[in-house]
Amino acid sequence: MNRPIACIFDAFGTLFKVKMPLEELDQVSGGKGKEILELWRSRQLEYTWLRALMGNWVDFDQVTHDALVYTMKVLGTEDPRIPELLMPIYRSPQCFDDVTSFLHFLKDQKIKIAILSNGTPEMLNQGVEHAGLLQTVDHILSVNEVATFKVNPVVYQMALDQIGVSAEETIFFSSNAWDISGASYFGLPTIWVNRSSQPFEELGVQPDHIVQGLSEAENLIRATN
Amino acid sequence: MNRPIACIFDAFGTLFKVKMPLEELDQVSGGKGKEILELWRSRQLEYTWLRALMGNWVDFDQVTHDALVYTMKVLGTEDPRIPELLMPIYRSPQCFDDVTSFLHFLKDQKIKIAILSNGTPEMLNQGVEHAGLLQTVDHILSVNEVATFKVNPVVYQMALDQIGVSAEETIFFSSNAWDISGASYFGLPTIWVNRSSQPFEELGVQPDHIVQGLSEAENLIRATN
Repeated sequence: MNRPIACIFDAFGTLFKVKMPLEELDQVSGGKGKEILELWRSRQLEYTWLRALMGNWVDFDQVTHDALVYTMKVLGTEDPRIPELLMPIYRSPQCFDDVTSFLHFLKDQKIKIAILSNGTPEMLNQGVEHAGLLQTVDHILSVNEVATFKVNPVVYQMALDQIGVSAEETIFFSSNAWDISGASYFGLPTIWVNRSSQPFEELGVQPDHIVQGLSEAENLIRATN
Repeated sequence: MNRPIACIFDAFGTLFKVKMPLEELDQVSGGKGKEILELWRSRQLEYTWLRALMGNWVDFDQVTHDALVYTMKVLGTEDPRIPELLMPIYRSPQCFDDVTSFLHFLKDQKIKIAILSNGTPEMLNQGVEHAGLLQTVDHILSVNEVATFKVNPVVYQMALDQIGVSAEETIFFSSNAWDISGASYFGLPTIWVNRSSQPFEELGVQPDHIVQGLSEAENLIRATN
């Protein structure tokens, strides 16, 4: 990898952790909290891919809501307290422990910092503010700009255009193996932040590097030139 | 709906049922058969959407294989007898009980019959032959023709081009709610064959009609004019 002018980060799961209210969810769903969270998350992602592929885009708030409506129907848990509990959680994420220190390291190195996310601009701005990173992040980039979702190559190109860099002047970080696959296939140098020690997805591409957390990535950045 | 010139059918799950060898799979995986089948199927579909969206297409055989490789890694079940058991099952599907009678009804009505599937041409031809439908089906259409997957609108357009009809001269049948969503959004008249009494997917579109099985669709066809 070349020395980057900008590092581009996925948001949720990579920089931000979203606290799932499992205990309260179990209380209002008769103990189906885990099932709800798993099906909701998988449908949320699947709906982004399906809508991007068919060209029928709506924003991430709507997709997240729709995925929850479907999940509640399938699991027969239609208590209105469930969306009241779950829909706001993307608004108040917390940083993973290694984020602040790594982003400050990049600042010291004069490397620009961008976030590129499926989230809405409102969701991302509130998340960055809540995480205390408003002064640290140079570009907050939402797919709303191009009205589609990752892994449409248009999304990764939009980030390069907005930052004003070429692919080889960046490094893309994500904890989502499917996102890394899309970015790698598009042509971005990639570091997969494999926070939960999963196998990589079998999509015909590989990340340039794999780390368990962001602190491990400091040496990779130092080694670029 | 108008009286159709052609009825277009999804293959697996709609016309064909694939027999999952659960008992043998449990034996070679230490009882993880159900988990393997569920994760394999969800990754198989997800990989089609992700690859179509990123533009990194490989055929359905490869996707099916890749999804199984991932599944075995995640579940820690790397016995080579698992792919030996599972990979051939798409080659010898059986028809659902209501298929032969419904397709003969369409033949009597002088309505053309097409299959439109993510499957490879080899897989579809073998499947149609194994199901005894070679003389009945007029068009066997694989996404290989356009090197992408459903729900890319290009796939549904290819079917119209190959059959030589316009959208409103067809009816599209699928048991997969996501496939019906893609076809409906593209503009095909649709009948969702909801064989397992599931809620419809929340993708912003609805089928024109819902049936529990194909025999119910005879009256819908008779009512067109």
